Amino acid sequence: MSAHSPDALKAWFLGPRAENADLFEHLVLEALRDHVFWRRNYHPEDGFTIRETDKRREGYDDAVATLTQELMGLLAELKRDVPTFSGRYQGHMIAEQTIASQIGYFATMLYNPNNVAAEISPVTTRLELEVAAQLGAMIGHNPSRSWGHLTSGGTIANFEALWLARSVHYLPVAAAGAAAELGVELRIRRVDGSSDPLASLPLWDLLNVSTSAALDLWDDLWRAAPPADVQRALTNHSLAAIGYQEYSRRLAFEYGDPLPAAAVLVAATAHYSWEKIVRALGIGSNQLVYVPLDTRYRMDPDGLWERVRELSRRRQPILTCISVCGTTEESAVDRLDQVLEVRARAERELGVTFHIHSDACYGGYVAAVTRRPDGSRRSAAEIRASLGAEWPGDDWVRAIAALGEADSVSIDPHKLGYVPYSAGAILLRDGRARNLVATDPPYLLPAQEPRSTSELFLGRFIFEGSKPGASAAAVWLSHKALPLDERGYGYLIERTMAGARRLHARLAVADLSPLRLVLLPEPDINIVCFVLCHPGFRTLAELNELNERVYLQMSPGRPQGPPAYMLTRTRLRSPMYDGAVDPILERLGCSREEWQAAGSAGIVVLRATVMDPFLASPPPAPDHITGFLEALREAGTTSLQ
Amino acid sequence: MSAHSPDALKAWFLGPRAENADLFEHLVLEALRDHVFWRRNYHPEDGFTIRETDKRREGYDDAVATLTQELMGLLAELKRDVPTFSGRYQGHMIAEQTIASQIGYFATMLYNPNNVAAEISPVTTRLELEVAAQLGAMIGHNPSRSWGHLTSGGTIANFEALWLARSVHYLPVAAAGAAAELGVELRIRRVDGSSDPLASLPLWDLLNVSTSAALDLWDDLWRAAPPADVQRALTNHSLAAIGYQEYSRRLAFEYGDPLPAAAVLVAATAHYSWEKIVRALGIGSNQLVYVPLDTRYRMDPDGLWERVRELSRRRQPILTCISVCGTTEESAVDRLDQVLEVRARAERELGVTFHIHSDACYGGYVAAVTRRPDGSRRSAAEIRASLGAEWPGDDWVRAIAALGEADSVSIDPHKLGYVPYSAGAILLRDGRARNLVATDPPYLLPAQEPRSTSELFLGRFIFEGSKPGASAAAVWLSHKALPLDERGYGYLIERTMAGARRLHARLAVADLSPLRLVLLPEPDINIVCFVLCHPGFRTLAELNELNERVYLQMSPGRPQGPPAYMLTRTRLRSPMYDGAVDPILERLGCSREEWQAAGSAGIVVLRATVMDPFLASPPPAPDHITGFLEALREAGTTSLQ
Repeated sequence: MSAHSPDALKAWFLGPRAENADLFEHLVLEALRDHVFWRRNYHPEDGFTIRETDKRREGYDDAVATLTQELMGLLAELKRDVPTFSGRYQGHMIAEQTIASQIGYFATMLYNPNNVAAEISPVTTRLELEVAAQLGAMIGHNPSRSWGHLTSGGTIANFEALWLARSVHYLPVAAAGAAAELGVELRIRRVDGSSDPLASLPLWDLLNVSTSAALDLWDDLWRAAPPADVQRALTNHSLAAIGYQEYSRRLAFEYGDPLPAAAVLVAATAHYSWEKIVRALGIGSNQLVYVPLDTRYRMDPDGLWERVRELSRRRQPILTCISVCGTTEESAVDRLDQVLEVRARAERELGVTFHIHSDACYGGYVAAVTRRPDGSRRSAAEIRASLGAEWPGDDWVRAIAALGEADSVSIDPHKLGYVPYSAGAILLRDGRARNLVATDPPYLLPAQEPRSTSELFLGRFIFEGSKPGASAAAVWLSHKALPLDERGYGYLIERTMAGARRLHARLAVADLSPLRLVLLPEPDINIVCFVLCHPGFRTLAELNELNERVYLQMSPGRPQGPPAYMLTRTRLRSPMYDGAVDPILERLGCSREEWQAAGSAGIVVLRATVMDPFLASPPPAPDHITGFLEALREAGTTSLQ
Repeated sequence: MSAHSPDALKAWFLGPRAENADLFEHLVLEALRDHVFWRRNYHPEDGFTIRETDKRREGYDDAVATLTQELMGLLAELKRDVPTFSGRYQGHMIAEQTIASQIGYFATMLYNPNNVAAEISPVTTRLELEVAAQLGAMIGHNPSRSWGHLTSGGTIANFEALWLARSVHYLPVAAAGAAAELGVELRIRRVDGSSDPLASLPLWDLLNVSTSAALDLWDDLWRAAPPADVQRALTNHSLAAIGYQEYSRRLAFEYGDPLPAAAVLVAATAHYSWEKIVRALGIGSNQLVYVPLDTRYRMDPDGLWERVRELSRRRQPILTCISVCGTTEESAVDRLDQVLEVRARAERELGVTFHIHSDACYGGYVAAVTRRPDGSRRSAAEIRASLGAEWPGDDWVRAIAALGEADSVSIDPHKLGYVPYSAGAILLRDGRARNLVATDPPYLLPAQEPRSTSELFLGRFIFEGSKPGASAAAVWLSHKALPLDERGYGYLIERTMAGARRLHARLAVADLSPLRLVLLPEPDINIVCFVLCHPGFRTLAELNELNERVYLQMSPGRPQGPPAYMLTRTRLRSPMYDGAVDPILERLGCSREEWQAAGSAGIVVLRATVMDPFLASPPPAPDHITGFLEALREAGTTSLQ
């Protein structure tokens, strides 16, 4: 933090009681009038299409009346929305947004640029790439090699990461076929560092090539023959063109070695969208191999090693390993540094390698906590000093610093970036991967450059087409107002971590008798989970019913309107949480067998996401922790009856 | 139109010279202050977290200064954006947005609801479903059966359509496996109307079941056994779970009949994103079978029939047929009514059926032109009278009315809906299909209803997760201000069609000597395409170079800033445009062989998208058609030198 950060924090948001309304209104009007006078002064010789006298006509009047009336109706309806701006809301991953992002969005929306191509968004396409580069720098990507862009959200970012990973994974097989067809000889770098003729590799080895070696091979192939020939040969051999059904047949035919479908290793805490993604991509959810958790809800490196060894023994290739930075349920931060070590060991000992993706949709911005203004890394001791806590340790910093080594990382600005929906981001450690999925639309080709890799035509390289430049500008302006280091986002998120730990500590000693409160471990970021129980309970069903009732009483969705304090809940289910929940089950007096038998009902866990940066603030900030505890006691007592 | 529509049109937009700035500012302030005072009055007992004295501190001041300064910088940068609000811009599919949508977006963005689930967006999830129902009613879907939702854009809407179509296509195979495993006997309705035991059907027949028969089978299966058993059995047999590789092996093994991978029939004009989509889904772009065009750039029904017959002869199943309503290049409207007839014939004569999707991303809103305020259909004669033109004919109305019969339709509100990015929509004729792709996240389950089909948790049924409720509110408010019939959107789009035809007519008689102008046919909606040529040209390359130069001179992206008038260009390429471009090539004196040899360079075609509703307006509206022609003459002459 800088000496100024605590005061600056008070200027970053509209405020729980709209304390900064004057500032906000001033900036909105500035943006609006600036735009209005741009139009007013654009070719004044055109005269006015809409005259003042037109506004005196009945049809005009009626149209204005309809719009005004319907807007009033909408505004009234919106009062039933969720008051996420208040410290009384500690539910899902949402709080208020920075003023910068809201004004940036509004100002740019008046221009409505479309970031599909710079031709129609000359300003905001550049801002989008700048924003992606800022995020890349924050997590530690090498700016000369990396690349990234914004998406409509985390699902699309993760989808794109796996789509790219698959393209890279199967590239050596396609390149081997293409090279044979073209009659060119290529060499490939293997995981042990040796270089071999591509044509000599068996299928298993072709499917165990590192990302950078595969992309070097891609470059070599394009250098080895005229582009049109390479294009044609690749089309004859790539999965993207021939599709899975034909591809599977060919592998079996050409290599006489029908290996099982490649596995997708995934932290057992991974977001439910991964299931959607592997289904849609045609990989199939059966190929998801869950990696066990430790009792801090992080991917267990030993468990990962076991899985990798087992898959290697079965000769099942591994497409990717998806680690999480900031799990949706607990905000757990995987020890990505150890995940990377497991891969290094697999390369050494098994000749096996795979792509590593970090799903940092929630937690990615935490990297700002670890950054000094000059971009160097803060030590854990510095962070502890600024938090005034015994935490975090060096391992926490190491886990976050490892993001720079992941092949791809997804980060949602619309989560801990505090910007309006929708803004996700995908960051690639080696940006060349984008060329593997490039598609050319006829009407957006850069002039004279049918195969240009121009960065300014995003639509070529990404899955989505039309997308709001306003979103890029919102993130960009927010990054300007709150730098991605200890002064800006780092300080903001540090305050939420302080708030979450304060809440956790207060819950640990809270007297809710006759109820008892069993806490999950202190979070790696800012989500606090716990379970209420009663000594008289005999079954998990009773326990779940109590917590579900508490949730319903503290949910904004209840019919009588939002309660005084709000949280949400989740379910920890078997087999994903096997092992991780043992300590909790034990303290609840629930057997592992009963929990496993509960299946998809799992165990209901109450969940408070602390995104409010003022929760740990001294007066005059309201003491919402005390309020929260009182509301919880009340909801618990009522739910017992 | 209503008598009021011409006057109302002048109230719908901020205006090319920001004529409605006062109205706009008034509504923005209304929305902002209304929100501010909601916060101000929410639990006033909480006191103020940010005090007036905090605003006197240096850190606060600095933060405000930074934000203000950076915003000014952004606003200045945005002056280099494209002036799409002006009638001088006739380029891509973008114009200004309705006031209603911009205010609706801004007002709702202050609340920032997330439409992933009603719990966190109680108001806007309802608005989203309402909007989808309005669009469904506009195109003629039966409200009691249909379902739809918004997406981040057309690519995701089309992706989801094909993802759903695939799920339905392979459902009978999965259901046959599941039924056998469960030991239950089910019957299935075949395309000839007969009903047979599911277990008796060969693979080919299982892959030729209509959407509604497949969904009835789904319902029957869930009724035939306890849900947990059905779930388990389906997981053992569905493509989504086992993935393509294993699935392909099983089909060959179980049916001894490894049919070729299913084809995706697609209009040769289809958007480039379809290629991305089939690649990503694992279908493979080789499975795209292009259907030839007629000389109006519409899918040729005879060509479609030939393709279907050919595929049937090869025993290659057909996953879907993608027809287009409003092609990206020419705004051509496929004769969807005839496409449906081809399918009916295929069912009768070949026992073959397939899903039909209409990619109406661009043209979907045109259905509003065909609607009276009471929802009944306008005749072509009525439309002609209101347009004051000899066009459109009955066939045009029939083609648009057929949208209601397509299994799925994608429509982008951010195109002819004139709302800010991003807003796409996917509409299903039979909403039950959504159940085939449902995924349950643990933290968003509706209380006590683990398998609820509650409409209010959108995230279960759609590909995306977090998404902006503001977008739904923007579309909703715009639909309120401009009803989806001849009074509102119908009138608006009618005016653009009038403008496009006026431009087409003026181009047809324009004297650009020494250049000659060769026009594509009159558009089905509002995109006018043409080619400039010179009698001295001997090669297609010369022709393309001229038109590329004209484009560069009339493109907003040129280094010296936007020119006086703007258009864009596209390339018509072989084999997609084979046949369609013959008349153009002939008039240009270019041989078909030369054009085919040009490959991906194709023929460069200049393209003007008329989304400006004032283009055909009488004075005092500026005469932008004359201005456009002058700019074109100038650019042509300069480009010759």
